[in-house]
Amino acid sequence: MKTVSEVKSFAGVQGVYSHQSESCGCEMTFAVFVPPLVRDRKVPVIWYLSGLTCTHANVMEKGEYRRLAAELGVIVVCPDTSPRGPGVPDEKDNWQFGSGAGFYLDATQEPFAENYRMYSYIVTELPALIESEFPADMSRQGIFGHSMGGHGALTIALKHPDRYRSCSTFAPIVSPMTAAWSKPAFEKYLGKDETAWRTYDACALVEDGARFDEFLIDQGSADGFLDDGLRPWLFEAACKQAGIPLALNMRDGYDHSYFFISTFMEHHLRWHAERLL
Amino acid sequence: MKTVSEVKSFAGVQGVYSHQSESCGCEMTFAVFVPPLVRDRKVPVIWYLSGLTCTHANVMEKGEYRRLAAELGVIVVCPDTSPRGPGVPDEKDNWQFGSGAGFYLDATQEPFAENYRMYSYIVTELPALIESEFPADMSRQGIFGHSMGGHGALTIALKHPDRYRSCSTFAPIVSPMTAAWSKPAFEKYLGKDETAWRTYDACALVEDGARFDEFLIDQGSADGFLDDGLRPWLFEAACKQAGIPLALNMRDGYDHSYFFISTFMEHHLRWHAERLL
Repeated sequence: MKTVSEVKSFAGVQGVYSHQSESCGCEMTFAVFVPPLVRDRKVPVIWYLSGLTCTHANVMEKGEYRRLAAELGVIVVCPDTSPRGPGVPDEKDNWQFGSGAGFYLDATQEPFAENYRMYSYIVTELPALIESEFPADMSRQGIFGHSMGGHGALTIALKHPDRYRSCSTFAPIVSPMTAAWSKPAFEKYLGKDETAWRTYDACALVEDGARFDEFLIDQGSADGFLDDGLRPWLFEAACKQAGIPLALNMRDGYDHSYFFISTFMEHHLRWHAERLL
Repeated sequence: MKTVSEVKSFAGVQGVYSHQSESCGCEMTFAVFVPPLVRDRKVPVIWYLSGLTCTHANVMEKGEYRRLAAELGVIVVCPDTSPRGPGVPDEKDNWQFGSGAGFYLDATQEPFAENYRMYSYIVTELPALIESEFPADMSRQGIFGHSMGGHGALTIALKHPDRYRSCSTFAPIVSPMTAAWSKPAFEKYLGKDETAWRTYDACALVEDGARFDEFLIDQGSADGFLDDGLRPWLFEAACKQAGIPLALNMRDGYDHSYFFISTFMEHHLRWHAERLL
């Protein structure tokens, strides 16, 4: 692991690091905030998965999580959203596929299967690195995210209910296999057989029997992607059917941006802290 | 005035606007945050002046001021740092002069005197627009800023002690006429006669008799510009000599970035609020 930068903020350290990823076959960059007064003890880890077009930097710069993470005493890890680099296949002009659009899945189709393995990266490879390099108590992990990263958080939590104690999302893509902006990516990454898509779709996972203790979702009513891409009511219906508690807050007048996310960041971090501390 | 964007955040509205500036002879862009529950009453205005290379957007994205501005009920105005555009003379490769480096002065030298009039813009033109377009109580104004914007805040407050009730800065350039990174700009904007420079230099203004009730400065000890460019001890000495109260906080381990600014944003906004509310 290489240190790209470490800067003091809110009495803790906001770092950016890179490493050669086996899962993704390229160098990957990620951000970690370590709260102050972490010396002899290990602290909970909260994973934030970002949305389409983002890197680790968007939430690090605009998410306003450090004040609360410092106060609560939690590590916040912000990974990138896809493999990147000269050897990684991409569609430069397509913001819904390739770089910035890894969809937190393991691709099975060529030429993407070599690099687009964000599911393994987030679930296996990066946690091992975080555990070895930071004062992280891996028995207390939470996961949250925004939009495509909300999809990532929901699906990963549903597949690992014993590992994550808490899961929340901002404006998540709850059914990527049925949304116009994600179906083409799923087909290119996973092939035409839609049964393979269901293990990376929060609604389908719940329908197929996956369970998690409870979820929190905040969704802006003025979000331009609400009706076509996000549709949280689909997940609300699936959770109701399955008996999974879901707090779905429709936030009047808020959009899809970090102006929305930062507004409700405190609400989410306190919600995770109640389950992790 | 044109509305570039208006987004709900922390129950208020973060807007970006543009207008044709008479002072600067070009279109200027600025950001305004209006707190919630401003209906029939007018609220105080706090001006944030940004540093070298910045636009209105840096602090809007990274400054973390909205939570507190919403809670306290204050408008925050974030102007650009220079004139910009195809008709504006510039030195593209020089980050310490031209675009992003207006130094909050009125240039007297050609070819810059036509456009580089940020002092008049901040002191006269933009306040009139803010008063006419927003629920702003112009009898209660505060001013703060960072680095070059700290220089702007200090010098403008010292020249208008009756207009601004409060002034604070993050890592200000307190003596631009004697710092290597600003002297060349002062000469190009104001000519070789250094007596003209003194009205845009906080230390010189105090030495020459300008007064203000009190100042707050936060400065990171790990700021790479501290010894050569910033040197707050020069302003501390000038204030001590003049009997002006100055709270100068050296913040151990903090640098010059928005990771530092955002950490102490709450401290500054509460300090202004105590004097404005």
